[in-house]
Amino acid sequence: MNLTCDAAARWLQERDGYLILTHKRPDGDTIGCAIALCLALRKLGKTAFVLPNEDATALFAPYWGDTLAPAGFSPDTVVSVDIASEGLFPKSAENYLGKVDLAIDHHPSNTGFAQNLCLEADKAACGEVLYTILSQWFPLTADMALPLYVAVSTDTGCFMYSNTSPNTHWVAAALMETGIDYPAVNKRHFRTKSYIRLRIEGRIIETLERYDEGTIALASITLADCAQLQATEEDLEDISAFIGQLEGVRTAVTIRELHPGECKLSVRTGPELNASKVCSLLGGGGHAAASGCTVMGTVEQAKTAIMGAIRQVQQHG
Amino acid sequence: MNLTCDAAARWLQERDGYLILTHKRPDGDTIGCAIALCLALRKLGKTAFVLPNEDATALFAPYWGDTLAPAGFSPDTVVSVDIASEGLFPKSAENYLGKVDLAIDHHPSNTGFAQNLCLEADKAACGEVLYTILSQWFPLTADMALPLYVAVSTDTGCFMYSNTSPNTHWVAAALMETGIDYPAVNKRHFRTKSYIRLRIEGRIIETLERYDEGTIALASITLADCAQLQATEEDLEDISAFIGQLEGVRTAVTIRELHPGECKLSVRTGPELNASKVCSLLGGGGHAAASGCTVMGTVEQAKTAIMGAIRQVQQHG
Repeated sequence: MNLTCDAAARWLQERDGYLILTHKRPDGDTIGCAIALCLALRKLGKTAFVLPNEDATALFAPYWGDTLAPAGFSPDTVVSVDIASEGLFPKSAENYLGKVDLAIDHHPSNTGFAQNLCLEADKAACGEVLYTILSQWFPLTADMALPLYVAVSTDTGCFMYSNTSPNTHWVAAALMETGIDYPAVNKRHFRTKSYIRLRIEGRIIETLERYDEGTIALASITLADCAQLQATEEDLEDISAFIGQLEGVRTAVTIRELHPGECKLSVRTGPELNASKVCSLLGGGGHAAASGCTVMGTVEQAKTAIMGAIRQVQQHG
Repeated sequence: MNLTCDAAARWLQERDGYLILTHKRPDGDTIGCAIALCLALRKLGKTAFVLPNEDATALFAPYWGDTLAPAGFSPDTVVSVDIASEGLFPKSAENYLGKVDLAIDHHPSNTGFAQNLCLEADKAACGEVLYTILSQWFPLTADMALPLYVAVSTDTGCFMYSNTSPNTHWVAAALMETGIDYPAVNKRHFRTKSYIRLRIEGRIIETLERYDEGTIALASITLADCAQLQATEEDLEDISAFIGQLEGVRTAVTIRELHPGECKLSVRTGPELNASKVCSLLGGGGHAAASGCTVMGTVEQAKTAIMGAIRQVQQHG
């Protein structure tokens, strides 16, 4: 059944024994929503916990508090936040496949896997949906406002991405008015880079090649780079977006040597070039604006292959 | 005389023949405020122009429209926006020293140089003050909302800096609701770097040295780097903030070789070290958290000098 935020708020008030699920490789939105909902339900006098997520990184460690469910906790009501499909359940949540009572989400692609769905697909962050639900119960306090601010700010790149709407800003203002330390959140999530991450970005800049008057940019990271810098997957997260910020670039290619003789390529393009067509020539695919493929060979061979594919699509469509 | 926003709105309605001044090395806040005020005054039926500013960069070129004053325009009323003192007048405004009828500002340090002052020192951007004034007249239209969004977003680093307040977000939301293309503004000002700027950042990363378990970071840019990359002052703007984003860094030193044998140093520190004391040992000074000095010598000699000064203040206070 589809529930409005009002109806979801009433539905939640009528039940108890909550376990809240977050998605695989959890981000600030799913984690922030889970913590805020848990604290709000407890303020209503309910028993509520968040299911520990084995993928959670240290970046969000400061926010959990005492919300994590103890081993063996047996819930009466299971709620998922910011999860679009059961395929996005973390390993720890596998026991709850087919058993979610209410999904609260903002993804238009939500598969309807839960008994009940509260979906607001026009919201940039699931945190905005949670804000509407929780505000039905009481004015939010700082302990709940902080994780929701994390949710809303991280899902919009600190109000920078095009998904940001006036509502995102209204919600941010209301959360900030509770007196939370939002400068600390902004510093932690948007103004801090690890030494290794910075060195990787330096390597990307060094390897940068430009073609067609700077509209095509190509960068690479080798196995040797990663080994030398002791880079983890976390350090490399979203690295393919890095060269997209370069002024004038319409096509950005990031080549990552995954194993000796095997490179993973990420291709991001403007509307004048179909990234999916380019990558499909090399056995990959994806979306028109962002696709990927794997090339067996060295970084140099991968460069030649992807430039050849780009030229072919440029000439023949 | 000090005017509230209400009073400033009435004062502006009673006069005509407006010339609007922006500050030296104009940023998005002063430029955005000037353009929005000019368009709003025109909508009230007034004659209004913005004084051309010789320091204005291409970054803000898309916003001027037809607001710039023609040569020889003789104003009846002179208004400054976001200017804290007459020392910040650009050359083109020197004729108006001592002749400003109304200053609209948000700097607590405003010297009161104008006949009348509308100052809201708790606002992150002067654009927030302008929003309040203009809203007295009519609901803002997109043509005025766009430059005000530029003002508010650029002065807060896209709502990331600690000066951002709930009011900043309320104003942003109201401006966005007029239908402006804010994703284009965000892309232009916050998600775009020039090739030269990126290469300079790459050079900074290469030269990075860390001391005291990574709490002290030191980076440099040489004359040769700047010559090789053909870097302009614009490319180097605010470069001393760059290494401050490094995780764990409490003291960030950026050394820039200005001339052969002359280096300019920027020092940013946390509360445990007084940057002004450090720099004063080398003949410079500034604020406790951000200071500067000049060292006659090579980059290597400047490094030795500043590390010596840091050690001395660490040990003796």
